[in-house]
Amino acid sequence: MQNDLFLRALRRQPVERTPVWLMRQAGRYLPEYNATRKKAGNFLALCKTPELACEVTLQPIDRYGFDAAILFSDILTIPDALGLGLHFVEGEGPRFHKKIESEADVLALPTVEVQESLGYVADAVALIRRELDGRVPLIGFSGSPWTLACYMISGGSSGDDFLSVRKWLYSRPDLVRAVLDRLTSLVVDYCDMQIRSGAQAIMLFDSWGGLLADAHFDGFSRQSLAAIVQALRDRHPDIPTIVFVKGGGQWLESIAQTGCDAVGCDWTVNLAQARSRVGDQVALQGNLDPAVLLGSADQVRAEARRVVESFGRLGRGAGHVFNLGHGISQFTPLDNVTALVEAVAQASRQQVL
Amino acid sequence: MQNDLFLRALRRQPVERTPVWLMRQAGRYLPEYNATRKKAGNFLALCKTPELACEVTLQPIDRYGFDAAILFSDILTIPDALGLGLHFVEGEGPRFHKKIESEADVLALPTVEVQESLGYVADAVALIRRELDGRVPLIGFSGSPWTLACYMISGGSSGDDFLSVRKWLYSRPDLVRAVLDRLTSLVVDYCDMQIRSGAQAIMLFDSWGGLLADAHFDGFSRQSLAAIVQALRDRHPDIPTIVFVKGGGQWLESIAQTGCDAVGCDWTVNLAQARSRVGDQVALQGNLDPAVLLGSADQVRAEARRVVESFGRLGRGAGHVFNLGHGISQFTPLDNVTALVEAVAQASRQQVL
Repeated sequence: MQNDLFLRALRRQPVERTPVWLMRQAGRYLPEYNATRKKAGNFLALCKTPELACEVTLQPIDRYGFDAAILFSDILTIPDALGLGLHFVEGEGPRFHKKIESEADVLALPTVEVQESLGYVADAVALIRRELDGRVPLIGFSGSPWTLACYMISGGSSGDDFLSVRKWLYSRPDLVRAVLDRLTSLVVDYCDMQIRSGAQAIMLFDSWGGLLADAHFDGFSRQSLAAIVQALRDRHPDIPTIVFVKGGGQWLESIAQTGCDAVGCDWTVNLAQARSRVGDQVALQGNLDPAVLLGSADQVRAEARRVVESFGRLGRGAGHVFNLGHGISQFTPLDNVTALVEAVAQASRQQVL
Repeated sequence: MQNDLFLRALRRQPVERTPVWLMRQAGRYLPEYNATRKKAGNFLALCKTPELACEVTLQPIDRYGFDAAILFSDILTIPDALGLGLHFVEGEGPRFHKKIESEADVLALPTVEVQESLGYVADAVALIRRELDGRVPLIGFSGSPWTLACYMISGGSSGDDFLSVRKWLYSRPDLVRAVLDRLTSLVVDYCDMQIRSGAQAIMLFDSWGGLLADAHFDGFSRQSLAAIVQALRDRHPDIPTIVFVKGGGQWLESIAQTGCDAVGCDWTVNLAQARSRVGDQVALQGNLDPAVLLGSADQVRAEARRVVESFGRLGRGAGHVFNLGHGISQFTPLDNVTALVEAVAQASRQQVL
């Protein structure tokens, strides 16, 4: 591995500067991404064609020299493999042709062999690893069971904080649990497959964990996350895991206790406080507001420095992976990302003990 | 006042049970509300016709015996008075005909005399007070400057966490501050007018404070809230204020330091922890997940009891106002609200020292 800074930060080993990658770094702000997407025809075809998924995964590495690559895919590939009919409505986000509306729907969920139904993901991972050729580590990922369940029960994106799903939490918690159990086991197999194909770290995205009541976060999201982290650790003790719960800033201790190696922080989290709360157990990943990248390059540099300084001194068993607090906006000017990467390197070198 | 339980709880004085009211309690889940709304023609006409606003304000008091009434109005009356042309698109939430897109737009915001432009609100408050006839206290309210600015700059509701507004935070913080300053002064005048018309408590809704980066919450929302709370306290020292920041669970200490009497908590907040963090400075209001009311009556009772018990013992200078963590859903079955009110009374009587 030519650059293992990211893996060292996750393991809280010494680093010479803070590694940086960006959620959704292979995305619509990049003209080369848009060109490949056009070639693919649509977003889902891009995800399902290993050569094209590989191409876009590498584009931001080539352009910006990020310290990690992340598999290009969608968080909803598992529900798609379960036969729900994933598709995308322009400007409206993901939609399913079928949704889970009853006990019968839960029971009717088919058995899925991930290697068979999601083999295109394994192929993409293997191809990306080969094309990366040891430049930087490759991150595999999955949506969390709770987040996947949100989309499956609501039938797509939600304009009302997934109220129909939250209703189920109280009216049919048994069914939600049944869905979560099915998904937990599938996510384990899915991540396991990605690791066996070459993924060198796994990130779990709990995009909607922050919608859960405090009394429910543990039972309806954290427990599934912990089960996945533990199962992956048993099978692949050397592969680090990152758990990101958007809106989970109040539960960092509980998230760290899943046994993950790093906790992702959205931009509402105070990174200095997060470090004092859980920084002796896990590395932290985050947490610049993606909106910063829509401002001036000077603002980008100032805010990047602020995030680096809020984490503070590197070393002493602490680990920080610089990232955004959410995915990069499609409206991000290309030069602002250059400014960001340079500013993180410069500011973080001054934090090395 | 026949029932001053709500005011006593806000002042952290002894109570014989926990008072209860629900955000958006005059709303579409009530058939009598829908009848009045139909009579009004549309939502905005309902807000702007004091007799009808009074009618719907009292409906939930008559039906359920809540311990407080809240003025029926919209949080966007101030931007409407500023000439932005508020209207509602069915199923899409509020929209403005004009939005604030430039420095010129900020400078062009007209001077507004609230008594003149928003006199219909004063009339509604006075009428409601008369019709309530001392049964329960009347709460007046306003959107927070940050939340109003979100709508004014984006031109309505947002599907992307108000990214265009957050962009301004970094690219034109001076303009955001100019808008916030204008709004802060208007909100003070607006709440002052409501109090002079008869409002007995004021609630400030910061619906979008939770979208701010940790480093920005203080400067772009909390400071305006604190300025309003202080100005109202100077003018009306006996009128309690409640500050509710949705998604603000990480910042309860900072919110309490605005000088408000009570802090609203959404359903992601652990009420026991909130009490230990700020319960010696302020009362707490909240925080049942509104989705609970879509489940069975048994679930409603169990979850209501859980919230009451998580706050814990009443007395000892602590105050709890039972509420939801967000507005009541239009799909709420009527009987579930009855079950809720009864359960809160029963469970909280057991918490009196």
